[in-house]
Amino acid sequence: MTFFDILDILGTTAFAISGALSAMNRRLDLFGIFIIAFVTSIGGGTVRDALIGNTPVSWMQNPLVMYLIGAVTALSIIFRNKLDYLKKSLFLFDTIGLGIFTITGVETGIRAGLEPIVSIALGTMTGCFGGVIRDILCNEIPVIFRKEIYATASIAGGVCFMILYMFNIDENLIYTSTTLFIIIIRLLVVKYKISLPQFIVNK
Amino acid sequence: MTFFDILDILGTTAFAISGALSAMNRRLDLFGIFIIAFVTSIGGGTVRDALIGNTPVSWMQNPLVMYLIGAVTALSIIFRNKLDYLKKSLFLFDTIGLGIFTITGVETGIRAGLEPIVSIALGTMTGCFGGVIRDILCNEIPVIFRKEIYATASIAGGVCFMILYMFNIDENLIYTSTTLFIIIIRLLVVKYKISLPQFIVNK
Amino acid sequence: MTFFDILDILGTTAFAISGALSAMNRRLDLFGIFIIAFVTSIGGGTVRDALIGNTPVSWMQNPLVMYLIGAVTALSIIFRNKLDYLKKSLFLFDTIGLGIFTITGVETGIRAGLEPIVSIALGTMTGCFGGVIRDILCNEIPVIFRKEIYATASIAGGVCFMILYMFNIDENLIYTSTTLFIIIIRLLVVKYKISLPQFIVNK
Repeated sequence: MTFFDILDILGTTAFAISGALSAMNRRLDLFGIFIIAFVTSIGGGTVRDALIGNTPVSWMQNPLVMYLIGAVTALSIIFRNKLDYLKKSLFLFDTIGLGIFTITGVETGIRAGLEPIVSIALGTMTGCFGGVIRDILCNEIPVIFRKEIYATASIAGGVCFMILYMFNIDENLIYTSTTLFIIIIRLLVVKYKISLPQFIVNK
Repeated sequence: MTFFDILDILGTTAFAISGALSAMNRRLDLFGIFIIAFVTSIGGGTVRDALIGNTPVSWMQNPLVMYLIGAVTALSIIFRNKLDYLKKSLFLFDTIGLGIFTITGVETGIRAGLEPIVSIALGTMTGCFGGVIRDILCNEIPVIFRKEIYATASIAGGVCFMILYMFNIDENLIYTSTTLFIIIIRLLVVKYKISLPQFIVNK
Repeated sequence: MTFFDILDILGTTAFAISGALSAMNRRLDLFGIFIIAFVTSIGGGTVRDALIGNTPVSWMQNPLVMYLIGAVTALSIIFRNKLDYLKKSLFLFDTIGLGIFTITGVETGIRAGLEPIVSIALGTMTGCFGGVIRDILCNEIPVIFRKEIYATASIAGGVCFMILYMFNIDENLIYTSTTLFIIIIRLLVVKYKISLPQFIVNK
């Protein structure tokens, strides 16, 4: 089991928790919660694999992913009030998932021989898609369109990954530092309410 | 032509009718009705094929599917008032499609060599996706999130399929019994208003 | 570089502009504009490639696509008020993109050895999907469901393509004439407010 695999498990876990919390907030029933947790967890990786032609997509090749998501969701239901006690836990787990899945997506692009800019785009999709599909299904405004910087953090992390990659730094160090970079950007942005410029069209 | 193929045609027909009825309820124009009927019919199978890498996806390999959907949709438009006379016909055809496509999805997963739990997930996606995309496009609450048990019936049918499969029962018998099992669960659930527990988060 | 490639670039450009304008109308921030422009541009082709198994999908095989979309989006932001001065510019660029991508989609289907009717369906999906995903993400009513004829123009263009194709007419001439055919249908339809019949269900 490589460090890459461990990251993948952590990302899957974080997104499963965020999906379960979001589904409970929407008062979905038992199976609805599992389905949203599942889709949030595997959404990004599924799109990534379908686009590069890595089929059957990765969660199909390893049934442990489904058991993991099932167990995490069950624990999220049991400890739902404790999770909620940690205020903004949904935000936190979503951010962790975003950071990790962006980086595993970029790495997957590089391994598939894609160009750097394409790998960054693939990483951004992998990181963002689970959260977007979760929000569309739960009828929330998709997270990438809220005022908080989201995709931007993911893109910045991908660029950072590529720069470090060119310097031949140890892979695991790159994974860790760029994942933390994305998480920290998001935390800072939300804390200090930083936002990007808008462009108004005269009418 | 195998029994599996016949089931596939029946499922395609049922979902095409449900899509056409839904589109007429939304007062879409002629082509809108055909498009929704088409997408509802092929949605589940398309996602199934894209995820396991069976490309070009199956409706592309057989143009008869498109003629079938076209003919069924034309008949649905002509007999729209008779269909509506059968109250809850939309519900009925959607349920038949769900039952059949779940089972063809599970079978496809087994043939592709996927693990049992993964095949059940694939069957559930195949069964549910057409209806979900129909509802999103027609701006209805997606059927899997309404109070009626939907994905749950599909998952239960998939589990039932796997159990019978392990006992080496005749394939066609498994297909028929598990498809009926899903349809009956949904009919009973809606008739007796059974629902699953929700989990409220304290705020 | 073939005429087909030039058409592809023009279609990508037109959809990028339509996506950027739509995102600015929704007051998305800088990165939101780039993301919507990107998704609108590559959406149709990505679905087309994923369904026929042409992976990694085409924009991943050629990083110039991303630079093109980036440059077009930047120019759309800079000249946003000039673009708006051309009234209905969003409608115009969307229509150009629809015409071009329908035809490249049909051509891709033929090259992949698909049946004529399947190639037309693939062309319609390629033409329509970018605009549909743009509208869903920007929270507009998807363009194919507005009263203006949209998918219908795309289907008519695909049929026209197939008829000319059977007469062995020069490829580039077919591309140009059928693309213009789709664009002109849409312009006429909107100008003269032509609409298709609806079918009301008695309740």
